[in-house]
Amino acid sequence: MPHVTLPTDQPGIRGLFRFRPETAGPLNALVEVLLCGPSTLTRGERELIAAYVSGLNECTYCYSAHAAYAAAQLPDGMALVEQVRDDAGAAPVSAKMHALLAIAGAVQRTGRAVTAELVAAAKAEGASDVEIHDTVLIAAAFCMFNRYVDGLATTLPEDPDFYNERARLIVANGYLGVLSREAVPAAS
Amino acid sequence: MPHVTLPTDQPGIRGLFRFRPETAGPLNALVEVLLCGPSTLTRGERELIAAYVSGLNECTYCYSAHAAYAAAQLPDGMALVEQVRDDAGAAPVSAKMHALLAIAGAVQRTGRAVTAELVAAAKAEGASDVEIHDTVLIAAAFCMFNRYVDGLATTLPEDPDFYNERARLIVANGYLGVLSREAVPAAS
Repeated sequence: MPHVTLPTDQPGIRGLFRFRPETAGPLNALVEVLLCGPSTLTRGERELIAAYVSGLNECTYCYSAHAAYAAAQLPDGMALVEQVRDDAGAAPVSAKMHALLAIAGAVQRTGRAVTAELVAAAKAEGASDVEIHDTVLIAAAFCMFNRYVDGLATTLPEDPDFYNERARLIVANGYLGVLSREAVPAAS
Repeated sequence: MPHVTLPTDQPGIRGLFRFRPETAGPLNALVEVLLCGPSTLTRGERELIAAYVSGLNECTYCYSAHAAYAAAQLPDGMALVEQVRDDAGAAPVSAKMHALLAIAGAVQRTGRAVTAELVAAAKAEGASDVEIHDTVLIAAAFCMFNRYVDGLATTLPEDPDFYNERARLIVANGYLGVLSREAVPAAS
């Protein structure tokens, strides 16, 4: 049961967005830029970083959601997402993605774990400054989202198809598009 | 030296805001709502939560900044902020703030550490659902900001009065007000 009384039985972060629309706006604007905005990383690659960090933080809702969003936008689908979760170092991703995932894993522990060596390794594989910046901020942002969702004890969906249906909506509309479709006035 | 080449020598998160204005907007909108927006917690109390979590994460820039912002808006100033940092349980804050700081400290470790007992203790001291929600999200957000600032190896200010001058600006203008005053087009 969630720690606060939500105005809906929508699971995970969706109930929190309904509870506090004032913070839902900036939170969705942030992931819209990071995960759907113009980037030299594909949307699938960026969702893979989000899912990887959420897995490290053991946040079941966020991992399940972003694993589904990543799988829907990566050629190798859920099999690859699960390989990254289980052993990122051995997963069949590009050398650049290996280096970026290593940076994301460091961020999950603490920002100070991102060493000059990790960054140099990513640059040696062709990662740009913006790609490194965005990897750090995606990983840091999911250290927030994971704590937000679990810290308020939100519920998990009962329907096993929930995440795949969300993936379809997010891929088609982006985060802000979905939020505006589902927005309900705070007072309702 | 920062891990990416910033367009400015401004320290801490300020250089990152200049590097990536697309994410600076949502990030500042988020702290504007959480730390400056309408709330039954004072701005000083909310900055105290931000400083406390930043101290736990050992983020020197964020701790120093939000400690200064809290001190500027709390009757007992920096002495209280440092007492909270050194031993939150023994610091002379209200029973409700003790309970909210305990929740924030749990969030800093992992969202799953926020137990029903911690939440019940806060409610017993009069904390509202929105206060509990905002405490969790402020703590979670600073787990992001701390990792963002340290994960990109941003620099610390050389001027010892830097944080006090920032405090004056933030208190007077809020985060979005300061951002818009200092905004520089991304291409400049």
